[in-house]
Amino acid sequence: MDPTAPPAAPNAAGITKNRLEAFSDGVLAIVITLLAIELRPPEVEEGHSLASALWDQWPSYLAFVLAFAQIGVIWLNHHRLFQQVRVVDGKLLLLNLNLLMWITLIPFPTAVVAEHLREGGEPARTAVAVFSAVLFVTAVGFTALYTWITHDARLVHALPPRADVVAARIRFGIGLAAYGLAIGLAFVVPYAALAIHAVSAAYYAFDQASFTASDEGAS
Amino acid sequence: MDPTAPPAAPNAAGITKNRLEAFSDGVLAIVITLLAIELRPPEVEEGHSLASALWDQWPSYLAFVLAFAQIGVIWLNHHRLFQQVRVVDGKLLLLNLNLLMWITLIPFPTAVVAEHLREGGEPARTAVAVFSAVLFVTAVGFTALYTWITHDARLVHALPPRADVVAARIRFGIGLAAYGLAIGLAFVVPYAALAIHAVSAAYYAFDQASFTASDEGAS
Amino acid sequence: MDPTAPPAAPNAAGITKNRLEAFSDGVLAIVITLLAIELRPPEVEEGHSLASALWDQWPSYLAFVLAFAQIGVIWLNHHRLFQQVRVVDGKLLLLNLNLLMWITLIPFPTAVVAEHLREGGEPARTAVAVFSAVLFVTAVGFTALYTWITHDARLVHALPPRADVVAARIRFGIGLAAYGLAIGLAFVVPYAALAIHAVSAAYYAFDQASFTASDEGAS
Amino acid sequence: MDPTAPPAAPNAAGITKNRLEAFSDGVLAIVITLLAIELRPPEVEEGHSLASALWDQWPSYLAFVLAFAQIGVIWLNHHRLFQQVRVVDGKLLLLNLNLLMWITLIPFPTAVVAEHLREGGEPARTAVAVFSAVLFVTAVGFTALYTWITHDARLVHALPPRADVVAARIRFGIGLAAYGLAIGLAFVVPYAALAIHAVSAAYYAFDQASFTASDEGAS
Repeated sequence: MDPTAPPAAPNAAGITKNRLEAFSDGVLAIVITLLAIELRPPEVEEGHSLASALWDQWPSYLAFVLAFAQIGVIWLNHHRLFQQVRVVDGKLLLLNLNLLMWITLIPFPTAVVAEHLREGGEPARTAVAVFSAVLFVTAVGFTALYTWITHDARLVHALPPRADVVAARIRFGIGLAAYGLAIGLAFVVPYAALAIHAVSAAYYAFDQASFTASDEGAS
Repeated sequence: MDPTAPPAAPNAAGITKNRLEAFSDGVLAIVITLLAIELRPPEVEEGHSLASALWDQWPSYLAFVLAFAQIGVIWLNHHRLFQQVRVVDGKLLLLNLNLLMWITLIPFPTAVVAEHLREGGEPARTAVAVFSAVLFVTAVGFTALYTWITHDARLVHALPPRADVVAARIRFGIGLAAYGLAIGLAFVVPYAALAIHAVSAAYYAFDQASFTASDEGAS
Repeated sequence: MDPTAPPAAPNAAGITKNRLEAFSDGVLAIVITLLAIELRPPEVEEGHSLASALWDQWPSYLAFVLAFAQIGVIWLNHHRLFQQVRVVDGKLLLLNLNLLMWITLIPFPTAVVAEHLREGGEPARTAVAVFSAVLFVTAVGFTALYTWITHDARLVHALPPRADVVAARIRFGIGLAAYGLAIGLAFVVPYAALAIHAVSAAYYAFDQASFTASDEGAS
Repeated sequence: MDPTAPPAAPNAAGITKNRLEAFSDGVLAIVITLLAIELRPPEVEEGHSLASALWDQWPSYLAFVLAFAQIGVIWLNHHRLFQQVRVVDGKLLLLNLNLLMWITLIPFPTAVVAEHLREGGEPARTAVAVFSAVLFVTAVGFTALYTWITHDARLVHALPPRADVVAARIRFGIGLAAYGLAIGLAFVVPYAALAIHAVSAAYYAFDQASFTASDEGAS
């Protein structure tokens, strides 16, 4: 292949990898931005200050930060994964659309948490459980996409070493287990479930920050 | 044409194919993401649980999934079609803007279905009929775009074999007939009309998944 | 300049033409899509059908189509103009941001028209006048951008022939006069003002459709 | 590096500079467009005209223009900065995501100002202080990103001359001081704080406009 060829090569399904990434990036950019439109100016009740009314909305801010971190991490991992992809087939397209569908859902349970966390009791438990469940299914969708892409050498530039694939699958397994645990915990101590989401996002962020520009490889 | 020329060649109307695709992708990414902002935290009535209130919103989830699948399929087909396009003329631009206009409408009838499906009776019938009608007109817009692009060899890299064009037009005809049938059915059994939309999306998904990376052609 | 140089050449202000176009396209794609979120499922009053409630929203549909056509035309003209641009300077960046600001405003007067047109009287007149005024100022912003870009040869690939620039400025002048007329007419016959907007969009569409792929020039 | 290599070189974290810019541009385009959806058709009270109701919304228009100018300036500076970036490391990705998070927040305090400025008293002071504080933290995020990128030569094409970096840091310091001053002033004279934001945006705009296409450098 001529390295000066301007666009990526078309694939059987007529969708290039570039287009798939651009579309996915568009959806992710919109979802991560829409999280903030849940933040609305509060109603200020008679005899209360705007400052206290804003403060009372803290579950909304917490939910915003948690969801922003989760989607930011998904974006980072999505790109890291597609860096390895060479061609796109039909199943990959569908698995990617499936993943995007769950991602676009995330603002909904985020809003449910923002609205019901402070009530405590059943609403708080249900809200956090639904939030955790959507993140769990999103992680399942990501795992499915990863598994399909790496299941043989057709779709990638070079299949990663077997040990790396196994290690990645173990990491995915641990991630899924953590989200599953969060669903269960939500019914007992909702805040503990949210803490798991915070820790998992922070772990990925820390992991990400450990990459340095010096190991950029052959460019 | 020099393969090292950096951007796509400008056309008479001053819009390159790349720009047209990027703009269309942007609109499609936004529309598919906006579908989810119809999903709102439910009002929980005195003595009811949040869980049951969330469950009661199932028509919203169903409408979301159906509309997401339809727009996902439109995105796949839009790209498959533009893969063949070489230059863009004025009529193509207008036919594409017309298609985008109907696509941006889709969240509106989706919200109407989500709000009125459970009421049954006239509201459910009307809601599903309007949803089906917007999908029907969208399909008409897509067919018009396809017909213009393939009506002679000016706009495409290579005109597909006559048999393929005929086969595609038959498929479009069947698709239009299915959407038309759904409009009619909506007035009798709204759920059956929705089932037609689910089946049609699943058909396209299955069809799509049958493409394999091995037939990627010369890249 | 080496034609194989991968990205567009950076300019003094550090913004390439490609980025400016991508950002403008993003804003235009979002604005044109947001027009449709003004379309909401109607409240159905006791004893009325959903069908009649949907029908009663016709001013919303009319406003949507008019605004979609106007923004579609702006997108077409924006690209046609930037096709000629070679480098970007600071004033061009500011004039483009100014244009984008007025464009992002368009959904607001569109919603005002949708809500108040049927009331007639002062609300209808004011709504249509505000809609016309925002389109007028948008056209002023576009004219300013065009005038700056073509005022000498620094920014463009090749200055268009003097006669073309004069012809374009006359067309802009006629356009501005039409929008100005619409503002005035809005205070007398609001529907006549809307008709001017419909005619102007149709004129541009017709004008656009007259370009053919055969005069694509040297590519 | 071969100048004909089509995409930017991948980095360790699997995210190219192009992708990072495209994602950031997407988020900025959406945020700047969402500012306008705060502008809603006003409720017209019995005996009042639509014109006066629209006029009474002037704090919304003021907040829209101020926020649009701030985000426009951020976009200009973001691109000017990334023009110098050669490779992307993990910390840069996180610092950029942090900046984007604060930027996506901006429509929220903008809406708070729009809703509470006219009330005067505590609500106006708090609203403007929160608006100023979010802009302050955004500026901190931008400064952190700039400082990381220019702290040694690994990430950039060429480290700017030391004097330029020092000058830029002084400018950032003055900017932060101005935003900090605005937070303080908000508690005394809210309108003076808004004036500072207007002046700072105008300063950047004027500064930007001073770049001319003639010093575009070697392209």
